[in-house]
Amino acid sequence: MKKFINNVDNILAESLSGFASAHQDLVSLNLEPNFLTRKHKASNKVAIISGGGSGHEPLHAGYIGKGMLDAACPGHVFTSPTPDQMLAAAEAVHADKGILFIVKNYAGDVMNFEMAAEMLSFTSATVLTSDDCAVINSTYTTGRRGVAGTVIVEKCVGSLAETGASLEACKTLGDKVNLRTSSIGVALTSCTVPAAGRPTFDISDNEIEMGVGIHGEPGRRRESMREADAVVQDMVQAILEDFAAKNLPTQGAKALLLVNGLGATPLMELYLIYNRAAQLLATHGLTISRSLVGNYTTALDMAGASITLCLLDGEIMQHWDSPVHTPALRWGL
Amino acid sequence: MKKFINNVDNILAESLSGFASAHQDLVSLNLEPNFLTRKHKASNKVAIISGGGSGHEPLHAGYIGKGMLDAACPGHVFTSPTPDQMLAAAEAVHADKGILFIVKNYAGDVMNFEMAAEMLSFTSATVLTSDDCAVINSTYTTGRRGVAGTVIVEKCVGSLAETGASLEACKTLGDKVNLRTSSIGVALTSCTVPAAGRPTFDISDNEIEMGVGIHGEPGRRRESMREADAVVQDMVQAILEDFAAKNLPTQGAKALLLVNGLGATPLMELYLIYNRAAQLLATHGLTISRSLVGNYTTALDMAGASITLCLLDGEIMQHWDSPVHTPALRWGL
Repeated sequence: MKKFINNVDNILAESLSGFASAHQDLVSLNLEPNFLTRKHKASNKVAIISGGGSGHEPLHAGYIGKGMLDAACPGHVFTSPTPDQMLAAAEAVHADKGILFIVKNYAGDVMNFEMAAEMLSFTSATVLTSDDCAVINSTYTTGRRGVAGTVIVEKCVGSLAETGASLEACKTLGDKVNLRTSSIGVALTSCTVPAAGRPTFDISDNEIEMGVGIHGEPGRRRESMREADAVVQDMVQAILEDFAAKNLPTQGAKALLLVNGLGATPLMELYLIYNRAAQLLATHGLTISRSLVGNYTTALDMAGASITLCLLDGEIMQHWDSPVHTPALRWGL
Repeated sequence: MKKFINNVDNILAESLSGFASAHQDLVSLNLEPNFLTRKHKASNKVAIISGGGSGHEPLHAGYIGKGMLDAACPGHVFTSPTPDQMLAAAEAVHADKGILFIVKNYAGDVMNFEMAAEMLSFTSATVLTSDDCAVINSTYTTGRRGVAGTVIVEKCVGSLAETGASLEACKTLGDKVNLRTSSIGVALTSCTVPAAGRPTFDISDNEIEMGVGIHGEPGRRRESMREADAVVQDMVQAILEDFAAKNLPTQGAKALLLVNGLGATPLMELYLIYNRAAQLLATHGLTISRSLVGNYTTALDMAGASITLCLLDGEIMQHWDSPVHTPALRWGL
């Protein structure tokens, strides 16, 4: 294992401290329990809190700020945060309209956010993200996994909350965006969890893991390495089949296409993937109206990429386009 | 070699096409000769054109847009663009106040941009960036290399040009920013150039290359892998010694700190590096007034990072802070 670390126990605190220092105009950090909040507390709105294991940066702390999250609770690498973190974060950011938790569907996260919600003295609701169409049930999951589509949910719900909308309205929009979003990832290499010190899984030089999870969980199948266009075609096909299974028509739809790097994939390759994905989606009658390409939901140092497609409607597009000012997403502010 | 590619000959065209498609609101792409321009041609300003070998994305095309570049000329991976590209780009974006080329100091780039400048029918000037303090002369370089500090030069000069400033003023600011900027990189792994198909250099699991170049060129020395704080301390020391050698005082200075990923390094590690670098710089009497952390000047799939420090003055800070709207840097617009 070759990483920029001092010792495994301190990675999270040191990295969070660097993050908070680099973005001190936008975020504040509390250590023990670990949570981050907006620098300037918002008022009279639903407070949007997300969180999950670390190692997926910029998710979630990178999305704290006006127009997106009020707080994030980072667990240790690939480990759920604990309820005391959510409780402390909620106490810090609640703003008289309730708390909305946005939680990626992993068993540990779901359990701990549920415990926090039960102990909370404020009204709360939860949006569970489950955009990964690769597999149903997985290593850490009952049901589908929440992956890069979570960023779109956080952006749209964060935008709506900023208007003073109700908790119920925010929850409804979050669930809608999640339903209309489908993702699939592919790994060329494993990631290495620092505390483990060795790759999470073995994969040979001529294999890929189709449908990999963002913790290195198994996907649909181990496949032979092929040219990028063939890999992208299978990924796009999986997403289109997912929308068909959900009875969401894609022909004629406007969509947001997110090509996400999993950590170690050059931007040059991500744009090459985007190029083919956009071409294929056009041949299937979709119009790509919005795009995002880069590392937005990562899996430590995994080489690989995911494709996320969100079927836009007027409401989702409006909330995607609205101003946002966070460390990792910024426009209009 | 495990990459998302179809065939080595088409990588650049496919990747550029994806880039132009994803950012069609901001940029236009011309193929053969390859160059990219702003979607909306600017008028009555110095046209800022950069370029260089591909593989350093988002440099340079990612910095095209209002407040930064007017055009970029991408060569093949780690290969200089040719004069016909600069000439065509200049023809497309010239706006009555001359052309300023921003060129990283590599022999091929310097020669080809010089040839273009000689053939050009417009007045032009060139800013050569040479922020890498690691080595004097290198594999592809007479004199110091231009690396991640180039982003700061492009941002500041782009901002000044937007005000209608003269070619001479833009050149003067670019040279000043370059002088006041120092960088050093370290590699944990090599990168792999697609056309070569194998790592550019061999490095063992317990070694790092201190002072590596962004094409995998040798740095100052091969060292044993150590804890991150020790590596960062040596990098910061090298930068401070460089400013001392330039007679630029750092005690009491305000600075911009850029911690840049070389392609395959998780953001979590970059923030850990930032944390230590900021602490060390504070103990040396510097105030970090501006920060940037992420993949801004990469070396394909190299695991590693660079630290760049720019000594701010009022003029540089003003132009760093001014609005910018490009695919890879955006604020205030």
